[in-house]
Amino acid sequence: MSALTRHAQHRCFAGTMSFWSHASTSCNAPMRFAVFVPPQAAHGPVPVVYFLAGLTCTEETFMIKAGAQRWAAEYGLMLVAPDTSPRHTGTPGEDDEVDLGSGAGFYLNATAEPWAKHYQMYRFVTEELPQVIEANFPADPQRRSIFGHSMGGHGALVCALRNPTRYRSVSALAPIVAPSQIPWGQKAFSKYLGTDPTTWAEYDACALVQRQPFGAMILIDQGTSDQFLTHQLQPDLFVQACQAVDQPLTLRFQEGYDHGYFFVATFVGDHLKHHAQALGVL
Amino acid sequence: MSALTRHAQHRCFAGTMSFWSHASTSCNAPMRFAVFVPPQAAHGPVPVVYFLAGLTCTEETFMIKAGAQRWAAEYGLMLVAPDTSPRHTGTPGEDDEVDLGSGAGFYLNATAEPWAKHYQMYRFVTEELPQVIEANFPADPQRRSIFGHSMGGHGALVCALRNPTRYRSVSALAPIVAPSQIPWGQKAFSKYLGTDPTTWAEYDACALVQRQPFGAMILIDQGTSDQFLTHQLQPDLFVQACQAVDQPLTLRFQEGYDHGYFFVATFVGDHLKHHAQALGVL
Repeated sequence: MSALTRHAQHRCFAGTMSFWSHASTSCNAPMRFAVFVPPQAAHGPVPVVYFLAGLTCTEETFMIKAGAQRWAAEYGLMLVAPDTSPRHTGTPGEDDEVDLGSGAGFYLNATAEPWAKHYQMYRFVTEELPQVIEANFPADPQRRSIFGHSMGGHGALVCALRNPTRYRSVSALAPIVAPSQIPWGQKAFSKYLGTDPTTWAEYDACALVQRQPFGAMILIDQGTSDQFLTHQLQPDLFVQACQAVDQPLTLRFQEGYDHGYFFVATFVGDHLKHHAQALGVL
Repeated sequence: MSALTRHAQHRCFAGTMSFWSHASTSCNAPMRFAVFVPPQAAHGPVPVVYFLAGLTCTEETFMIKAGAQRWAAEYGLMLVAPDTSPRHTGTPGEDDEVDLGSGAGFYLNATAEPWAKHYQMYRFVTEELPQVIEANFPADPQRRSIFGHSMGGHGALVCALRNPTRYRSVSALAPIVAPSQIPWGQKAFSKYLGTDPTTWAEYDACALVQRQPFGAMILIDQGTSDQFLTHQLQPDLFVQACQAVDQPLTLRFQEGYDHGYFFVATFVGDHLKHHAQALGVL
């Protein structure tokens, strides 16, 4: 495992907020991530909640805008937020569009060129990053949960549904739930995975949940004034998919909230409470 | 009073976060400000807490990074954050330095050229902005408090000490308390007010408190790992000034915290509690 480089560290809610990079073997590139270690970690390993961010975001976005540390410090949860893609890889076109390439990794392992060499975010998030965290921070390797926002909500659902024993709980804020059926997902998947839609099901929460439910209750919040609700997000598709296989789902429509981080900040406390309960610290 | 232009609005903690500009008569320029209206305002006017930000910040910084809306929504406080200066005024050199001009208004009324025409932030913050807020938002004009960070902590202390009947309470996070005695202040004051230091006392909290104490207890938090602590901030000078006139002061040194918004976010709840108590909502 390569050495970590620390870019910044700040005291925060009696814990430690830090920003890192390391040479990722999954992505064949440096990957950046942020870690909040709560004060409870002074007394022994703590559970880890991973947060996956949305299009255009970085490892900083959630840690700066969501106000989650206040809750993580109360519950004794470590927070880990990776960047949303590798960057500066030299991949042709990686910086040309906001929904493809840099900031738009979609938490999958790309199989199509020119993306396959570096865009291996699924492997990075589910395997390499937990190894890095558990080797370098006071993390309990038996207790992980995951959540995310928008594209990161898609990522969290996919990671949890494909690895139900690896994550105790999963939740999402305004997630993409059916990427195979909406414009963002169809564009990204056709570029990263190729144009055969049968290969897309491995990264489609609606398809995955019908193959193998997660089991424990999934929490989703969705703003009713979200500008992407009807065209891109379509949470009703996930409701139908969960109902078909008796997957417990709490989908809350939040009146008047949009897609941004003022929405995320409002409900992040409920999500961390959901994970704290599943992780046995509440 | 000129019309307000709304640039953005978001639902947030069951209240409303919005961003505005208007043609300021004080500054002879457009001024931007942000307003969080808590859910309690649906039932009648609420008290207002003004927040003044530091060097390089805008009206967005505090609202995005501090997580204060969570507390304001709990206590029923409106939050108002103005930009830290006028911008794009055409003043020669306004964008040349981070500690002078744009983003560095220092909450004073400039008397020296070329700044006097637009840099009238003291008048804007203490007179014009409250009039705008009280005319356009469900604000109780009898209940105002003020706080700020760094240069904005200086601004909050100056505004409150010069107008003890206008503000019920004042607090500050890592404030400049003795601008006449430290590099940031000496540079800015000599440019904005001229080189005669006797004119600077009107904007120097240490000088002002000795002339007329505020009365009610002042709360200040200061991180011990703040990179500006010994060279620029020197809170001990304010301790001495307050002691000389029996001004009640709670100065808390917070171990290991630096100058940034992870520090502000950690303690903003305590500051809003301080103001909520003074404003009679807690």
